Amino acid sequence: MTPQIHDTPVNIKKVMVLYVGGTIGMERNENHVYSPSPNKFLKKLEHSAQMHDPLLAEKYIKHLAPNQLVLPEIGSDIVLYQLEEYSPLLDSSNMSSKDWIRIAKDIEKNYTHFDGFVILHGTDTLAYTSSALSFMLEGIQKPVILTGSQIPIFETRSDAKDNVLSSLILAGCYRIPEVCIFFANKLLRGNRTAKISSTHLNAFDSPNYTALAEVGIDITLNRHFIMRPSGVPFRVHTKLNPNVGLLNFFPTMTPCMFRALLQCPSVEGLVIQSYGVGNIPSNQKELLQVIKEAVRNEIVIVNITQCAQGTVSASYETGKALENIGVICGHDMTAEAALTKLCYVLGIPALSYDERVLLMKENIRGELTNNNNNIY
Amino acid sequence: MTPQIHDTPVNIKKVMVLYVGGTIGMERNENHVYSPSPNKFLKKLEHSAQMHDPLLAEKYIKHLAPNQLVLPEIGSDIVLYQLEEYSPLLDSSNMSSKDWIRIAKDIEKNYTHFDGFVILHGTDTLAYTSSALSFMLEGIQKPVILTGSQIPIFETRSDAKDNVLSSLILAGCYRIPEVCIFFANKLLRGNRTAKISSTHLNAFDSPNYTALAEVGIDITLNRHFIMRPSGVPFRVHTKLNPNVGLLNFFPTMTPCMFRALLQCPSVEGLVIQSYGVGNIPSNQKELLQVIKEAVRNEIVIVNITQCAQGTVSASYETGKALENIGVICGHDMTAEAALTKLCYVLGIPALSYDERVLLMKENIRGELTNNNNNIY
Amino acid sequence: MTPQIHDTPVNIKKVMVLYVGGTIGMERNENHVYSPSPNKFLKKLEHSAQMHDPLLAEKYIKHLAPNQLVLPEIGSDIVLYQLEEYSPLLDSSNMSSKDWIRIAKDIEKNYTHFDGFVILHGTDTLAYTSSALSFMLEGIQKPVILTGSQIPIFETRSDAKDNVLSSLILAGCYRIPEVCIFFANKLLRGNRTAKISSTHLNAFDSPNYTALAEVGIDITLNRHFIMRPSGVPFRVHTKLNPNVGLLNFFPTMTPCMFRALLQCPSVEGLVIQSYGVGNIPSNQKELLQVIKEAVRNEIVIVNITQCAQGTVSASYETGKALENIGVICGHDMTAEAALTKLCYVLGIPALSYDERVLLMKENIRGELTNNNNNIY
Amino acid sequence: MTPQIHDTPVNIKKVMVLYVGGTIGMERNENHVYSPSPNKFLKKLEHSAQMHDPLLAEKYIKHLAPNQLVLPEIGSDIVLYQLEEYSPLLDSSNMSSKDWIRIAKDIEKNYTHFDGFVILHGTDTLAYTSSALSFMLEGIQKPVILTGSQIPIFETRSDAKDNVLSSLILAGCYRIPEVCIFFANKLLRGNRTAKISSTHLNAFDSPNYTALAEVGIDITLNRHFIMRPSGVPFRVHTKLNPNVGLLNFFPTMTPCMFRALLQCPSVEGLVIQSYGVGNIPSNQKELLQVIKEAVRNEIVIVNITQCAQGTVSASYETGKALENIGVICGHDMTAEAALTKLCYVLGIPALSYDERVLLMKENIRGELTNNNNNIY
Repeated sequence: MTPQIHDTPVNIKKVMVLYVGGTIGMERNENHVYSPSPNKFLKKLEHSAQMHDPLLAEKYIKHLAPNQLVLPEIGSDIVLYQLEEYSPLLDSSNMSSKDWIRIAKDIEKNYTHFDGFVILHGTDTLAYTSSALSFMLEGIQKPVILTGSQIPIFETRSDAKDNVLSSLILAGCYRIPEVCIFFANKLLRGNRTAKISSTHLNAFDSPNYTALAEVGIDITLNRHFIMRPSGVPFRVHTKLNPNVGLLNFFPTMTPCMFRALLQCPSVEGLVIQSYGVGNIPSNQKELLQVIKEAVRNEIVIVNITQCAQGTVSASYETGKALENIGVICGHDMTAEAALTKLCYVLGIPALSYDERVLLMKENIRGELTNNNNNIY
Repeated sequence: MTPQIHDTPVNIKKVMVLYVGGTIGMERNENHVYSPSPNKFLKKLEHSAQMHDPLLAEKYIKHLAPNQLVLPEIGSDIVLYQLEEYSPLLDSSNMSSKDWIRIAKDIEKNYTHFDGFVILHGTDTLAYTSSALSFMLEGIQKPVILTGSQIPIFETRSDAKDNVLSSLILAGCYRIPEVCIFFANKLLRGNRTAKISSTHLNAFDSPNYTALAEVGIDITLNRHFIMRPSGVPFRVHTKLNPNVGLLNFFPTMTPCMFRALLQCPSVEGLVIQSYGVGNIPSNQKELLQVIKEAVRNEIVIVNITQCAQGTVSASYETGKALENIGVICGHDMTAEAALTKLCYVLGIPALSYDERVLLMKENIRGELTNNNNNIY
Repeated sequence: MTPQIHDTPVNIKKVMVLYVGGTIGMERNENHVYSPSPNKFLKKLEHSAQMHDPLLAEKYIKHLAPNQLVLPEIGSDIVLYQLEEYSPLLDSSNMSSKDWIRIAKDIEKNYTHFDGFVILHGTDTLAYTSSALSFMLEGIQKPVILTGSQIPIFETRSDAKDNVLSSLILAGCYRIPEVCIFFANKLLRGNRTAKISSTHLNAFDSPNYTALAEVGIDITLNRHFIMRPSGVPFRVHTKLNPNVGLLNFFPTMTPCMFRALLQCPSVEGLVIQSYGVGNIPSNQKELLQVIKEAVRNEIVIVNITQCAQGTVSASYETGKALENIGVICGHDMTAEAALTKLCYVLGIPALSYDERVLLMKENIRGELTNNNNNIY
Repeated sequence: MTPQIHDTPVNIKKVMVLYVGGTIGMERNENHVYSPSPNKFLKKLEHSAQMHDPLLAEKYIKHLAPNQLVLPEIGSDIVLYQLEEYSPLLDSSNMSSKDWIRIAKDIEKNYTHFDGFVILHGTDTLAYTSSALSFMLEGIQKPVILTGSQIPIFETRSDAKDNVLSSLILAGCYRIPEVCIFFANKLLRGNRTAKISSTHLNAFDSPNYTALAEVGIDITLNRHFIMRPSGVPFRVHTKLNPNVGLLNFFPTMTPCMFRALLQCPSVEGLVIQSYGVGNIPSNQKELLQVIKEAVRNEIVIVNITQCAQGTVSASYETGKALENIGVICGHDMTAEAALTKLCYVLGIPALSYDERVLLMKENIRGELTNNNNNIY
């Protein structure tokens, strides 16, 4: 249901909030363990003076639906937001590609009726979901901002309201045509970001890309780093291929372990997190043999670094060797971006293997930097 | 061969340098690709005024062996160092537990003859080697400092000499009874450190532990964070069990992938990098079943976080569930520490399964922080 | 009035809150400019579910005074806090040594009745007040935590409640015998801290001293860095000498400017912020002459660095030259600490000039690090 | 003398190095105190394999002047550099506007003969000199890079060569039409930078502006942040007015101190470092009176923040009050930029007071950000 608005000179900005699940809406159960609390989140927001202003709502909005709230004054704009709670609420560590598709479809369905979207989500796989959405939502013109919290909104000490409030303002009042993550005063590109801390409130970072905006006394945009609208019409891709794996190299890894993973009947794509600028053991003939076979079987293999920051480079020996046997250079993609991009690329119908490989190498949603021209 | 020293009032400090391999000593070959250059590193140091002072050597040392060099004056101490080059030189991404054992034995053999040890090593698995050594070298009283460089010493622009020089000074002149990594002006605990950047010169960090020392105009030690000598006599453990795996969770992981890894005939230990504070999917019954079976088969499974910073906690639901089925809480261990500790613990002869589990939980070399008492 | 407590097994912790003034309690006036709003802050807290729980209060406290509030449950402790609002509210940039004395006296008067103290203060001179208090409150056994906010509590988006809430918990439930600043999830030593940003919410830092505590999912104390109770009995010094100046060196400074400042009739102490490790122009004979005269006239002159991080060192030429003519090495003190320490030291009755100089050089409240033994 | 070059396909890049003075070229004297060592720096470079390659020189350069050196191979370019040593060498803390003018004239004289300029300078006032040069060198098309070191090149452990080497490569091979500071692997805009540490090797930062380039395994430019060539023809302004003061506000400051400074007969401009977003005490009528008088006497007064990061804003009460009485909003300028810009603006002949005020408010060399449009 789209909100109805009084005739008024103020700007009403409409934001759809998809409350998918996560720590943000959990409560301690009888065993003192956090678990989801359905149908309580809206009420909590409604009774928080910071999150809902009934007088402002009455003044400017004709019929406020029961799941619609209005932020207190924040400048010249009025932010009206509408909360849709998923049922059941999803635990972040349980989420799969089906859930990403559901979210994408919900955005598609409501795309024209809102100025922006906020997705409340658990932090554990938040960066996977934001990466997946960035690939599924082509030619997006409006902000889609994922957020959550490290501490539930029902706790006395919590980062929930700060994160939701700033996300709502950014989604409603700013033109940022991107899928983003907002967390701890920073707006980050969704497919550049990883969860970097399990315990700090400042839990996310995009180590290879500058923050898109910072929230302090004012909100400051780093305009050079925000994507330009692509001109491509908005279109949602809802076919994902979940048959992709991720393998982090380590010194005691054996070819058997590598082969075992690939022999899971369904695997069609694989992200390998190699050492440093893209190195894997060069003295294990059998390992290279296994990789070669996999490529021959048209498994799409992408090489990224296991370091938190930096890029894989094809100008080193191992990198070159891997490229020669058909492994794709993933540049500075995060694991989250590489894996979900594979799901997306392998899900596009009627592409040849070579076309898929090409797409994986290219920068299609701002997810990678292709620096061929760095010298010295 | 131990160096012979003139009778002299100055302090002669003796450092053994094991040059194991790595980017630090590579040169570009005819294809413009870096490869190791045997028997050139010593010469390079010898002809660098910064790394060797022949006059000082002549003044204070009677018979300088061909592989011995003397640092220029750096204060009241004279640092005499002796370079042992491995043959063949080892590529960091090829190194295995056998190489860790070899290094440990070399230190054991020479332990009494030197004031400290510097190990020149590739950066890719440097943090694995430093972690492994920290477990193998029990009751160590002298510094063992691993270093390397992002750019070879033979390049015009290089971080090699700075790293080696400061490592030599720290190993020779400071009492730091630990296995450490020195890189980019910071001395870090070896089993707390990870390679965090594939491209920056500042490539290592210990996100859960303060740096042990910082090198600026002066060298500043953070004494509170340096280990006290344990009192335990020095002893080198040279049995490692390499049959351990590492698995990073991701949303498209299937029980098949997990099971495949465990079915590699030899696997006796497994590190799982779970989400956030230790979460894994709770809706995949089969996955939990596979884990239970593995524990029943006495595979030692340690749970750590895949976040760069922070800890796994048993006070959350999934963490508790995992603990209940016998998965070990790895606290804030790095992947490098958890994996090599498993190799060490599984390599100790004649321990029961329960004793191994107990050792994995405990802080034995400063590798983990057990914060049971954090409240609110 | 001290709160009266029900007979109950829970721990009631009592915190006194001195609301001195500052941005935290301002509202926009008719010209859209922030100005203080007297008698509204308590009400704002009272009606915030996050800051006051009337049911909990009713359950555990017999007679709740009108200016007493009770934090919602945060663990096993109940935090009861009592707000005293200054009248008039003080603008941080207007505060003087008289105000510091007033705060110190208020703490003295109430010291035995509370477990800790929170001072709500403008951010502009917050670090001056916290430094001054650290010197005035000798032998303190309880936390005194200063905080404030970059955005008023009456704004929709604000850092006020987070800062106040965590300060209350730390002041009530933790044994930190220090004057501290809490801001943006960090607890910092009061006389080590400076305001480092005019626009970010993360506005304070102590560049030469590790944070005392960090607030994330849990509250983590850095125990090695928290002061031990000194054993000295608690005693409040309420005599300060405000006749002290501060002078930041710059290349176009002339001896006239320096002399002019010193000739203000009352100046008895001076902090100079010199270049780098303590350098001032050595080619201006007249300048050195002016300094010499000042020292001869028993003006106490302390030399600190104008760099945000680091220390002044007497082992460099200029530093030594300055020491020779009687300028005091201020080590790594902040400008805030050096200036307020001077006010304190010059305010102690019946000390000789030499005794004052000696006190300025020594570490008396954790305000400086005296590293004479760094080598190489 | 301009270098003569063999006919050759390689690119010869010519860099002029002005060795002005500073720690970088000092040696310990008999009292163990650092002092300048004239006529030794060139020799030191010449005998360092890292800084000079005689074979490469012989191969590509016909007549190498005695003060010309050639960097070892660093890619496809050959960097030929020519060292001009100032006599006497200047101590950074003694430098004045006359020295800035001398450097500017030296660049002017040699501008057409070189591809870039490197200035070796003490670190203490390096940021003042770089700021001054940025204003004096209008329409510059070539890099002018200031650098130095925290530890002399003659010490065993030193950051000198790394800083000089990277500066030479950046000045010779990159098109960066700006005055910059290079230090500790970062290239920073000269008029945005301050010395932030007296003791760390990483001693400089530009807190309000992203680094222009970072030096790691590769050199990475942040192209969005590098100035575009202005189109204005290159022109050197060599008239500076040194009659400017700097005053850092502090709580014990009295109107007398302020007035004393202004009464130094020559003062024509003043930078005030106010609190936070631009606040000064509002309860000291006399102080405001002194400022008003000064403005009436056409002293140009610029208001900046004393915080290391952030900006002054005219949208707060005190800021507005100051603007109303004629104090100029200095936005996010560093003290170094504000002071040297004043010297420059007051030195331009035949400008009215109002024209000078206007120039101070505007961004003329990338030295300030004028964010009028930040909202909320």
